[in-house]
Amino acid sequence: MKLPGQEESDLSSASENVPTGELDSGPGSGLSPDGPLDTDSRELEVPKDPPLFIQLNELLGWPHAPEWKETGRWVLFEEKLEVGADRWSAPHVPTVALPSLQKLRSLLAKGLVLLDCPALSLQELAEQVTRVESLSPELRGKLKALLLQRPQHLIQTPCTSPCWGSAHSREASQEEEAPLKEQHQNPRRQKFPAGAEAGAVLAGQLGFLEQPLGVFVRLQDPVVLGPLIEVPLPSRFFCLLLGPPTLGRGYHEMGRAAAILLSDLQFQWRVRRASSLHDLLAALDAFLEEVTVLPPGRWDPTARIPPPKRLPSEHKRLPSQLRLAKGPSLRRRTPAEDRHGRRQHAANPELRRTGRLFGGLVQDVRRKASWYPSDFLDALHPQCFSAVLYIYLATITNAITFGGLLGEATDGAQGVLESFLGTAVTGAAFCLTAGQPLTILSSTGPVLVFERLLFSFSRDHSLDYLPFRLWVGIWVAIFCLVLVATEASVLVRYFTRFTEEGFCALISLIFIYDAVGKMLTLTRAYPIQRPGSPTYGCLCQYPDPGGNESQRTSTNPKDRDDILSMDLGLVNASLLPPPECAQRGGHPRGPGCHTVPDIAFFSILLFLTSFLFAMALKHVKTSRFFPSVVRKMLGDFSSVLAILLGCGLDAFLGLATPKLMVPREFKPTLPGRGWLVSPFGANPWWLSVAAALPALLLTILIFMDQQITGVILNRAEYRLRKGAGFHLDLFCVAVLMPLTSALGLPWYVSATVISLAHMDSLRRESRACAPGEAPSFLGIREQRLTGLAVFILTGISIFLAPILKFIPVPLLYGIFLYMGVTAISSIQFTKRVQLLLIPAKHQPDLLFLRHVPLSRVHLFTAIQLACLGLLWIIKSTPAAIIFPIMLLGLVGVRKALEWVFSPQELLWLDELMPEKERSIPESGVEPECSFSGSDSEDSELMYQPKAPEINISVN
Amino acid sequence: MKLPGQEESDLSSASENVPTGELDSGPGSGLSPDGPLDTDSRELEVPKDPPLFIQLNELLGWPHAPEWKETGRWVLFEEKLEVGADRWSAPHVPTVALPSLQKLRSLLAKGLVLLDCPALSLQELAEQVTRVESLSPELRGKLKALLLQRPQHLIQTPCTSPCWGSAHSREASQEEEAPLKEQHQNPRRQKFPAGAEAGAVLAGQLGFLEQPLGVFVRLQDPVVLGPLIEVPLPSRFFCLLLGPPTLGRGYHEMGRAAAILLSDLQFQWRVRRASSLHDLLAALDAFLEEVTVLPPGRWDPTARIPPPKRLPSEHKRLPSQLRLAKGPSLRRRTPAEDRHGRRQHAANPELRRTGRLFGGLVQDVRRKASWYPSDFLDALHPQCFSAVLYIYLATITNAITFGGLLGEATDGAQGVLESFLGTAVTGAAFCLTAGQPLTILSSTGPVLVFERLLFSFSRDHSLDYLPFRLWVGIWVAIFCLVLVATEASVLVRYFTRFTEEGFCALISLIFIYDAVGKMLTLTRAYPIQRPGSPTYGCLCQYPDPGGNESQRTSTNPKDRDDILSMDLGLVNASLLPPPECAQRGGHPRGPGCHTVPDIAFFSILLFLTSFLFAMALKHVKTSRFFPSVVRKMLGDFSSVLAILLGCGLDAFLGLATPKLMVPREFKPTLPGRGWLVSPFGANPWWLSVAAALPALLLTILIFMDQQITGVILNRAEYRLRKGAGFHLDLFCVAVLMPLTSALGLPWYVSATVISLAHMDSLRRESRACAPGEAPSFLGIREQRLTGLAVFILTGISIFLAPILKFIPVPLLYGIFLYMGVTAISSIQFTKRVQLLLIPAKHQPDLLFLRHVPLSRVHLFTAIQLACLGLLWIIKSTPAAIIFPIMLLGLVGVRKALEWVFSPQELLWLDELMPEKERSIPESGVEPECSFSGSDSEDSELMYQPKAPEINISVN
Repeated sequence: MKLPGQEESDLSSASENVPTGELDSGPGSGLSPDGPLDTDSRELEVPKDPPLFIQLNELLGWPHAPEWKETGRWVLFEEKLEVGADRWSAPHVPTVALPSLQKLRSLLAKGLVLLDCPALSLQELAEQVTRVESLSPELRGKLKALLLQRPQHLIQTPCTSPCWGSAHSREASQEEEAPLKEQHQNPRRQKFPAGAEAGAVLAGQLGFLEQPLGVFVRLQDPVVLGPLIEVPLPSRFFCLLLGPPTLGRGYHEMGRAAAILLSDLQFQWRVRRASSLHDLLAALDAFLEEVTVLPPGRWDPTARIPPPKRLPSEHKRLPSQLRLAKGPSLRRRTPAEDRHGRRQHAANPELRRTGRLFGGLVQDVRRKASWYPSDFLDALHPQCFSAVLYIYLATITNAITFGGLLGEATDGAQGVLESFLGTAVTGAAFCLTAGQPLTILSSTGPVLVFERLLFSFSRDHSLDYLPFRLWVGIWVAIFCLVLVATEASVLVRYFTRFTEEGFCALISLIFIYDAVGKMLTLTRAYPIQRPGSPTYGCLCQYPDPGGNESQRTSTNPKDRDDILSMDLGLVNASLLPPPECAQRGGHPRGPGCHTVPDIAFFSILLFLTSFLFAMALKHVKTSRFFPSVVRKMLGDFSSVLAILLGCGLDAFLGLATPKLMVPREFKPTLPGRGWLVSPFGANPWWLSVAAALPALLLTILIFMDQQITGVILNRAEYRLRKGAGFHLDLFCVAVLMPLTSALGLPWYVSATVISLAHMDSLRRESRACAPGEAPSFLGIREQRLTGLAVFILTGISIFLAPILKFIPVPLLYGIFLYMGVTAISSIQFTKRVQLLLIPAKHQPDLLFLRHVPLSRVHLFTAIQLACLGLLWIIKSTPAAIIFPIMLLGLVGVRKALEWVFSPQELLWLDELMPEKERSIPESGVEPECSFSGSDSEDSELMYQPKAPEINISVN
Repeated sequence: MKLPGQEESDLSSASENVPTGELDSGPGSGLSPDGPLDTDSRELEVPKDPPLFIQLNELLGWPHAPEWKETGRWVLFEEKLEVGADRWSAPHVPTVALPSLQKLRSLLAKGLVLLDCPALSLQELAEQVTRVESLSPELRGKLKALLLQRPQHLIQTPCTSPCWGSAHSREASQEEEAPLKEQHQNPRRQKFPAGAEAGAVLAGQLGFLEQPLGVFVRLQDPVVLGPLIEVPLPSRFFCLLLGPPTLGRGYHEMGRAAAILLSDLQFQWRVRRASSLHDLLAALDAFLEEVTVLPPGRWDPTARIPPPKRLPSEHKRLPSQLRLAKGPSLRRRTPAEDRHGRRQHAANPELRRTGRLFGGLVQDVRRKASWYPSDFLDALHPQCFSAVLYIYLATITNAITFGGLLGEATDGAQGVLESFLGTAVTGAAFCLTAGQPLTILSSTGPVLVFERLLFSFSRDHSLDYLPFRLWVGIWVAIFCLVLVATEASVLVRYFTRFTEEGFCALISLIFIYDAVGKMLTLTRAYPIQRPGSPTYGCLCQYPDPGGNESQRTSTNPKDRDDILSMDLGLVNASLLPPPECAQRGGHPRGPGCHTVPDIAFFSILLFLTSFLFAMALKHVKTSRFFPSVVRKMLGDFSSVLAILLGCGLDAFLGLATPKLMVPREFKPTLPGRGWLVSPFGANPWWLSVAAALPALLLTILIFMDQQITGVILNRAEYRLRKGAGFHLDLFCVAVLMPLTSALGLPWYVSATVISLAHMDSLRRESRACAPGEAPSFLGIREQRLTGLAVFILTGISIFLAPILKFIPVPLLYGIFLYMGVTAISSIQFTKRVQLLLIPAKHQPDLLFLRHVPLSRVHLFTAIQLACLGLLWIIKSTPAAIIFPIMLLGLVGVRKALEWVFSPQELLWLDELMPEKERSIPESGVEPECSFSGSDSEDSELMYQPKAPEINISVN
């Protein structure tokens, strides 16, 4: 149940940001949810008829007190009235017994069918439909009076208790034709777009009829039939199924069958165009041709099937005449084509080489410039606020952690302040200019490894580090500009899922490893006190008995002080805790003075708290509990709430846990240097040339790091509308390199995990229009403002020490762990690793398992695992300097896999590389055995919820 | 995949313990899994035909290299060959397009139908089926050769890699008729009971045919058709569907339709008895009459529906002639009758009053005596071993905790040793003699509350507690014997689900509250050291400098010692940790000497570890990971493994966490008393009479506590075969009362939570025989040995201090929490409380929600919550003495609810009380509106997985 205001804001949020024509309004949008294929398939759609709301009114209480009651309703799915409970059932897939459909067919075949009936009111309609030869005038009158009787609707108003639409209906005048107040107030009404129509099915047993009566009416102009329909929509169809009580519940079931038929889009399409009874029956037969049958002994007919996550595509079941008219553009796509559709860049103009120097860059700038104003306007949504908070916290945590690591690695040449400043400056600059402003710049793990190696090299050779580093930066910028000029970024087409997942898994593992590692480091800093450990005693010793005595008497002799300075038989010592001891001029002495007990385990508790709560709150989003607004809020703010909870716990216990430390003074970490690095320092001049060699390696690393992240962010399944900007992104990174090098700030590239978290916190989802329809993913709020706000806040945070110091660091490590775990658990690689642990018969029905032998799947996974292990080992050894080349090697390994796996297998497990895609004839990518259900492959592809398989989501 | 040996042991475990005739062997047992209704519906079953395995062999590779390949198989559900992946799909509900069934019908109508064909081999059969007029002799020969060609089967042997049954098939002689080695080795063969038959469907396109060929054969005597079927079962049916390539995949789909038809029990029944083509088509039409139809636009026909948890009952779809023949015994049961079936005791002879003194007791003893030998033989199963370990740990934890509490409450009049001794002695005695030996006796929360009150009363009036308590015990025994003599236990029929759930929720909450409360008490015992807290310093002071000096020099002056006794400018003090200080003759002084740091948080970590791991391991049992043996093991031993893990962690860190303390000396806790309590002590003689008053209250408490637990344990859904023994149970408790009172041991009654955990660890489940069939619950291993072993171990534990002392207490509190949480989360009451938080449209499709308005459901829940709150408050205040009466009041509240709720509502939310059940006419309990799907109610009841709703499961 939503408050009306709430609903409006949600509706507006679903339709904003989307250019006209791209979002179909109304339930129609749910009828072709082809996922990532949507954009290119949209033009093929059936000409849109207005959406139809079907209602089944049943005649009850015959013979004592006959009255109409709404007992079922349909848009996409069926909602049934639970009679005993006075509530609507959850929407479910409508199922019906075959005989009901057949009985309906024979009833209509000999019944009255009025197509384009000119009735303008219920009164006129009742007049028309009672003109049946078999009825006597008296019966006609009785029937007409019955039809005009006002039906009962169960309208669930926003107030929780359901109210019967017209409990007093029978007393009211039967002539009243105007829609009733409760019809207008029906909250469901707001769910229908303008132009929606209704269909009414009236069914039941009527004692005075001698034989069944079937009437089907298509009104020429849809008209609001008074109180007949619970929402005052104009009715287009009217179906009456009455008969003597011999059939029992048969009429109810026939009514359901008619409603299910009418709710079918194909049937609607045909019946709207039908010109005779024959056409109507043909439409029914066409429906029967397509139905799926559930055998009776294996399936309980009363079981309710929940709505599937994805509806079958309507394309495949277009009426044949339409299919012919549309011609070859409607032919079935092969799996290969579907796969192509999944990766925009395969055929993307952005990744087509122009052949001109800086041609790609110029193109990127031109394209991005046209979106620039909207990049700020599109940010006006509350969701962006939560995104800023979440990403801000992740960013400063990252800045602090990374600053600390950098300080360690470079012996204080750089530090936390540089990290903050660099993050804020480069991040904001990148957000304002980049091709993909959703990217969050960060100093990433691989770059840190490289910097550590560079520092130890310069120390070993007694070089002045920062000037040397400045030249490396300048060379990197030059190399990157060459890459931009030569449009090298088009090579990202060779980054297949294999490369992406390998890289993403590596980065996620680094996140997880760092989070856990940092926690263990903490417990080393705050050692656990084992029984008998030497860290026990601490004594406060005063330098001089006299002075001490005077100080002691000067303070208030409270009870507590008495205990602490109790007579130990000593004149110059007491048991005051170290801080108070120092305050009073004493010296704390003893091994126990510098240990803080309880911190280690409490830190672990805080770490677990933030990790587990963030995980749990994320799951609340998909749970049944709470109204959806609350659920969404809890899910979106999961990490912020987990941090707040941890802070509260920490503040409540008041322990001296390590807190977030932001530097208090604004000056470089390295004492004695100004903000600008001198270009040579103590180094020989030729070092500026020699710096080109390490710069080459760093360039490879930055190119890989930057572009793989770019490829992942710009995946087709995120449905970005404003396009990528690989050349522009690389250009921005290149320009920032000498800047950060000259100021002695860290080097920055796009960070996969945080950027994905950023995108994920900006997901736009449609509100389901038809009950039971799953909300579909509409895209991302692409804009520059959230990123900018995050980095401005980061800049301000340099001065926010008094507030940030309340946040215990272990909480942030918990959030790091959470980010790493969610990132790694969302890639297909992880699913395949899990398959290694699942016995074959329990394995989920994954698409690739249907088409690739399990042993081949395992082999592919094992190769990926081996690559990952190798990368990890290289990263951890002195050979780490060649790590960038090894990363590039992933592409080579993938290329080599073409000798091990068949193109078909690679198509299912990964995707094809550019040349391979061209070289394989279209039929070749179909599974090799001709008898394999080629008819069904396509739809299986549709049915499988593909998005989660390839979606790296982080929140 | 199971190892063959494993499978055998599981099969044997499924069939042991069950008297002949009670468990149908083979897949047939899965065909009427009516849950608790099974026992009384069994006699109504259709005469059993042998189970049928259907295999679809498809003709592929025409025209180049035609060969038969098995591409589908059916028992209950369909398994499809994933061609690309060379594996069998997971079993799923077979669905088929309606036109395929219709095409099959017309093909059979004009095809060849041979009923009772006398062929004795594949050769003869091929001869028979090729005798079709439309075929030229040459084509007949070609067709016959084709039919004799050996088909390819994908046989998944226990070795993981699938091996193609006969990859070399085409080279082998076509005449070879004997079943092949791989057919015999097929592990699937062991799944079929003796007498199982096969049906073969052969389908495909065959170029040389000019028109479609349909042949249906029923063999007179089933015969193994050589290598045709993957398992060497004798075939009864043979269906051949071949035709020119015009239909394309149509033959495959027709073949599937034929296989689905043949796998339907009703169709089988009819076709086995068919005597003409007409009968065959009638059977097909009867099938079509019953099918459920899924509309095309709402359901993707290629989506695979996983097998439902419960299959629809076959009773309702008996062929009408059979239904008539069986007469009224086959009429549909009403929901009320179903409900009755759920509660054995409503019509249970055990709860019928005999009218004789001790009549019920005599009956109980007689009935139980007949099961006595089997009570020991039935325990011979490995599962019992894990049950003993699990319950043993729970029992000693309970004994220790309770002993501690009792010691506190009675100021040391009783204690841990009494608790251990009493648990062991009374538990073992009860297991050997009780009516329900699965019960675990324990001193429960309510009894403790009473004992605490009794003690404070006797202290306030300066009474000698133990002698006074002895008289209370004697009176309780007398009152209980009166209750046994008057057969008062038949009143348990008034304990409806309302009472049970209220009581169970209360006990579970006490478990949870105690577990968390004890943890918090621990953190008070090991205070957290905040910065500046006074518990900082500790100094080791020596009584006399000289003696100290000599001692110090006598020890080895290690480095560490140097630090600790470093020169503080003091002669008579050092910073040695307290234990070492004491060892060396010094006195630890200072506020920090008695605090042990880090213990509090580490205890919380251990507590969370055992709780979360036990929860997680329990979920492993229902996850996809690991082979089912491993999964079951992890699930069964979840709490033991969680405890072991925690012990490992604790041992690794070596902290002084509080450990399980078992008394080392075997003597009463109260100093100076012998084991026997003197009957009067210092009390006046009339106190032995006055003790009758508190004894009356205690009797009510014990009766309620004992019998509600009994009712819960003996619920029909646990399918106990050996029956309850309410009178005998109460008799045993009564006899044990004076014994424990005379020895000064605690009082014991049945403990709900631990007993349920005991039962749950002894569940017997069937192995699914047909692929996809869910394992069904067969019952409980009812025996006396596990309980006996548990209590013998508990007795031994008095001497097990050296081993048990390694178990940290917080781990056990975690397990307590786990037991409380699982117990409370399994009752329907909890589900209804959750409903309060779930918006109406997201609520699960629970049966009672379909029939009772939500506001009424919430009202019922609110009343239950209020009762629970009231009980909790009374338990916690001085008014706790009337707690037993309030507990009895639950029954009264339930009775009063009859004025608030209609019988229909109570029927859905609770159940009816005995008189009410009789007073309501059968039709009255049907939902009131005549049009509500009364046809479907029954099956909805069946379909809903009812067991978890009413099942209080603990493991």
